[in-house]
Amino acid sequence: MSQLTDTQSEPDHRGLPIDRVGIRGLRYPVTIDGVPTVGTFAMTVDLPATQRGTHMSRFVEVLASCHHDLNEQSFLTMARTLRSRLNSTRSCVELAAPWFVEKLAPVSGGAAMLDYELHWLAEVNGRTAEFTQTVRIPVGTLCPCSKAISERGAHNQRGVVSVSLRRSKPVATAELIRLAEAAASSDLYSLLKRSDEKFITERAYDNPVFVEDLVRSIAEQVRSVPGLHWYRVEAENLESIHNHNAYAMIEGAGKSAKKRRPAG
Amino acid sequence: MSQLTDTQSEPDHRGLPIDRVGIRGLRYPVTIDGVPTVGTFAMTVDLPATQRGTHMSRFVEVLASCHHDLNEQSFLTMARTLRSRLNSTRSCVELAAPWFVEKLAPVSGGAAMLDYELHWLAEVNGRTAEFTQTVRIPVGTLCPCSKAISERGAHNQRGVVSVSLRRSKPVATAELIRLAEAAASSDLYSLLKRSDEKFITERAYDNPVFVEDLVRSIAEQVRSVPGLHWYRVEAENLESIHNHNAYAMIEGAGKSAKKRRPAG
Amino acid sequence: MSQLTDTQSEPDHRGLPIDRVGIRGLRYPVTIDGVPTVGTFAMTVDLPATQRGTHMSRFVEVLASCHHDLNEQSFLTMARTLRSRLNSTRSCVELAAPWFVEKLAPVSGGAAMLDYELHWLAEVNGRTAEFTQTVRIPVGTLCPCSKAISERGAHNQRGVVSVSLRRSKPVATAELIRLAEAAASSDLYSLLKRSDEKFITERAYDNPVFVEDLVRSIAEQVRSVPGLHWYRVEAENLESIHNHNAYAMIEGAGKSAKKRRPAG
Amino acid sequence: MSQLTDTQSEPDHRGLPIDRVGIRGLRYPVTIDGVPTVGTFAMTVDLPATQRGTHMSRFVEVLASCHHDLNEQSFLTMARTLRSRLNSTRSCVELAAPWFVEKLAPVSGGAAMLDYELHWLAEVNGRTAEFTQTVRIPVGTLCPCSKAISERGAHNQRGVVSVSLRRSKPVATAELIRLAEAAASSDLYSLLKRSDEKFITERAYDNPVFVEDLVRSIAEQVRSVPGLHWYRVEAENLESIHNHNAYAMIEGAGKSAKKRRPAG
Repeated sequence: MSQLTDTQSEPDHRGLPIDRVGIRGLRYPVTIDGVPTVGTFAMTVDLPATQRGTHMSRFVEVLASCHHDLNEQSFLTMARTLRSRLNSTRSCVELAAPWFVEKLAPVSGGAAMLDYELHWLAEVNGRTAEFTQTVRIPVGTLCPCSKAISERGAHNQRGVVSVSLRRSKPVATAELIRLAEAAASSDLYSLLKRSDEKFITERAYDNPVFVEDLVRSIAEQVRSVPGLHWYRVEAENLESIHNHNAYAMIEGAGKSAKKRRPAG
Repeated sequence: MSQLTDTQSEPDHRGLPIDRVGIRGLRYPVTIDGVPTVGTFAMTVDLPATQRGTHMSRFVEVLASCHHDLNEQSFLTMARTLRSRLNSTRSCVELAAPWFVEKLAPVSGGAAMLDYELHWLAEVNGRTAEFTQTVRIPVGTLCPCSKAISERGAHNQRGVVSVSLRRSKPVATAELIRLAEAAASSDLYSLLKRSDEKFITERAYDNPVFVEDLVRSIAEQVRSVPGLHWYRVEAENLESIHNHNAYAMIEGAGKSAKKRRPAG
Repeated sequence: MSQLTDTQSEPDHRGLPIDRVGIRGLRYPVTIDGVPTVGTFAMTVDLPATQRGTHMSRFVEVLASCHHDLNEQSFLTMARTLRSRLNSTRSCVELAAPWFVEKLAPVSGGAAMLDYELHWLAEVNGRTAEFTQTVRIPVGTLCPCSKAISERGAHNQRGVVSVSLRRSKPVATAELIRLAEAAASSDLYSLLKRSDEKFITERAYDNPVFVEDLVRSIAEQVRSVPGLHWYRVEAENLESIHNHNAYAMIEGAGKSAKKRRPAG
Repeated sequence: MSQLTDTQSEPDHRGLPIDRVGIRGLRYPVTIDGVPTVGTFAMTVDLPATQRGTHMSRFVEVLASCHHDLNEQSFLTMARTLRSRLNSTRSCVELAAPWFVEKLAPVSGGAAMLDYELHWLAEVNGRTAEFTQTVRIPVGTLCPCSKAISERGAHNQRGVVSVSLRRSKPVATAELIRLAEAAASSDLYSLLKRSDEKFITERAYDNPVFVEDLVRSIAEQVRSVPGLHWYRVEAENLESIHNHNAYAMIEGAGKSAKKRRPAG
C-alpha cells in the first residue's frame, strides 16, 4: 500500500484554504435518543491552503464508529472526533432523520406512531463546540380570517413548524414538539376514530391561527428558555385555498443571551 | 469518424431482446398547447436480441428537432420519428411538465396564473400509435364526515386529482381541469382577496367530498366521453388531521369502448 | 360514540365501485428481515359501488399492529388482515424503505454500511395473495464505447439497478444484490482506502457495461430462478458526460412460468 | 367588501416583530434573461410587532404584474415594489428556475439545449437593495487519486458546481457557466456523437480534478471579479465508487471588497 501515490497530501499552490470539504448524502441506520431511524449525514472539515485534498474515507470511519445511540453528547463527540481525525481546525456534522413518537388519539385513546423530522448540526471550531437542534413538527392550522369573514366553516390545512435553537444544554425533542403542537389549531395523529375527528375539528375551529400567530406564540415560549443563545421558529402552511404555501419566520437571541450583555 | 469502433452495433449473444432502452430525466424547454414551460422527457425504444446497444444520441436529436409547439399530434409524431430513426418496432415518449392557466378570482376578478401538471405518454407499436394524457389538478376538499359529526367547522385540505385517459381524439386539458375542479369542494387560486376567501370557504363547506366522492364524480363524467378507450381517476388529500394522505382510484374502459365490442 | 353519523357507511347511488381506496405516504418505523429502518406505506382496498366511503382509521390500526419484524410472510399477512378488517375483496400494501448491508472494502477490509432500497408489494384478491419484491442497487458502470474509442480513460458513473420479481417463494434480498453487483462494472462501497480505490478503478475498467448489458446479464440469471412467475430488470445510469440518464429495461415471465404452460 | 373583518390588520399584543412572512413554493412562468422557463418563487417581508398579519394576496399581485422578462434590474424592482406595496422595512424575493443554453458538441458540432439552474435572491432593506445570483452547473469530474494509483482508467462522475456572488453589477450567467465548465474535467452536453465522446473521455482523463481543485480554481477566478462583495463556490460529486457524494465549499469577500476598506 505504501507505494500508492498520496495525491490528496500533495501541496497546493493556489493559496486558498477551503472552508468545508467532506461528504454529503450518506444514509446510515442510527438510533436517536432511543428511537431507531435512518439518518442522512453531511460531514465536513476545513482544509489549509497548503494541502490539496482531504481524506474522504476517514469521514465514513468516524461515522461507522460513532453512529450508535446518538444523543446530543455523542453527536458532538462525533464532530470532535472528526476534527481530530482529519487534523483540521473546524468540523461540522449534520444529520437529518425522521423521528417517531407514539401518540394516543385524544378521545378514543388509540395508539400509533407519528413522524417528525430532526435536523441536528454540530460545529466544532478549535476547542469550542456548538449544537444546533431543529425539530420539524406537522400541525393543523385554521385560518382566523376565513373564520371571521365566513358565515360557515373556515379553511384549514396541514402545516409544518420548524423550531431551531442553540443552548448550553439541549431541550428535549418531546418538549419542543409539545410547544409547537400547543400553539397550533390542532396537532396531528396517525390514528383517529370518529369521536377523535369531531374533537379535533372543533378544537381547530376554536383555535384559529395564522402562520404569524404560530411563530409568535412559539417564539414567545422558546426565547424564554434559560441559557438560550439563539433560536429560529418557522411555520409553513400547505394552504387549502392556494397551490402555494404561506410562510413566517422569527429568529433572534434568547432573552438570557441579551441579559449576558449588560452594556448591549 | 468512420474508424471509431461502433460498440453499440456489435452482435449480442445472450438472446435477450430489450423491452425499453433510451434516455430519462432530460429537461427541455417546450411549448405545450401554446403554453411555454419546461418538460422532463423519457424516450425509449425496443432493441432486438441481436444488437448490443442503442444509439443514445439519436433520442436527443429527435427531441431537439421536434420539441417546438407540442400538441397531441406533434407529440405522437415525435414518437413515430423516434421509432423510425432507431429502426425499432416500438417507441415510447413520456413528458412531465407544469402547465399554467390564468384564473380570475371568483368575486374580485383578480387575475393570476395557477399551475397544473401534465403527463403525456406516446406509445408506438409498428403502425399503431396511442396517446395517454394525464392532468394533475390541485383542489380543495372538505371532509363530509367531519362536517356531519362536528358542531362547528370541518377539516379541509389541499388535494391533487389526476385524470388520465386514452381516446381516439384527446380531450382539451382545460376541459379535464374544469371537470375535476367542479367535482371538488372548491378549486384553488393563486390570487384571492377577502371577498373571494369568504366565497371559497362557504362553497367548500357547502360541498363536502371524500376522495371516494371525488373519483366517482369525475369518473362518471370521464367514462361517458365519446370514443374513450381507457381512463383512470385518482385523488390524494394532504389530510389536515393526519401527516399522511387519503387516496382513491377508479380505472376502466370507457362506455363507448364497451359498446364497440358487441360480442364481448 | 354510537350517536355520531357514519357518513362513510352511507349508500352511494352513482353505481361505481372504487378500485383502490386507502392511505398513502405514511412513514412508520419497521424492521425488515432483521434490519431496522423507516418504511413509507401505501395501503388500499377496493370498495363496492353501494358504499360511500372506507374507514381510514382501520388501515393504520392494521399497520400499527403488524409492523414489527416484517418479512415476506408477515407482510402478506398484513395485506390479508387489511382485506378482512375492511370487508373488501382485494387489498394492497406497498412499502418503500432504505435497507442496509455491512460491506467490507475489497482490499483493506474496512467495514461500513451501504444503503439499498426495497420496494415491497402485497396484493390480495379473495383467497390468492401475491408478493412482488423489488430491490434497488446502486452500482458503478463504465462505458464500453467510451473505452473502445478513446486512447486513454473511459467515462463511468453511478447507476441504479432495480430487480423486481414475483415467485412462489421470495428470493433473499442479499442474493438479488449479489446478482446485480456481479453484473456491474463494479459495486459501490461507503468506505474505501486507496488500495481499494485502485482495485475498483481497474476492475471497472476491465468490466465495461452498457445499461443494455447490465439488464441482459441480470435478466439471464433472474429468469432462470425456479418457480419464477414474473420479473423486471431496470438500469439507469447518472451519465457523467450528460445531465440526463441512460435507461434500459427487460421484463417477462420466468422460464419455469413458460414451462408450466405446455399448450401455450 | 368593506364590511368584511380585516383580521390581519388587528393589533398584536405579544410584542414580537416577524422577520419574514409571505409565500413560498409558488410556480410561475417567467422569462429570465430572454430564456422562457418556470420559476418557483418565495416572497417575504418583515412585519412590525404591532400588526397581527400580512396581506398574502399582495405578494401574488406583485409577482403577477412583474414576472415578465426578468433580469437583475426587474428582479430588484419586484422586491422594491413588494416592500412598498406591503408597507414594510425589508423585503425578500427568491427565484429558483431551470435555465437553458444551446451547446454545440465539441467535435461533431451537433446542437442541443443543456439545462442549468438559477437561484436568484433580491433583498431590500430600506433604501438599500442587494442581488445575490447563483448558478448551478452540471460538470464531469475525474479523480486525480484514482488516475495516479491505477494502472488503467480512473473513476469519474457527474458533479454539480454552484457559483454564488454579490456584486455591484451582476455577472452574465453565461460567463459563470464558462468559468465553472473550464475548471472541470469536462463539461456536459445533451447531444454527443462518438467522435465527441472520444474527445470528452480523453479531455477528462487529461484534466483530473478533486472537488477541492474545482472550488479553488473557480474561486481564484471569481474573487478577482471587479466590484465583488461576496462569493461562494461549491462542488458536489455524485461519486461513481460510493453511494454518497463528495463536497467542497469556499466562500469569502471579493478582492476588491477588501481594497475598498483601506482602514480595515
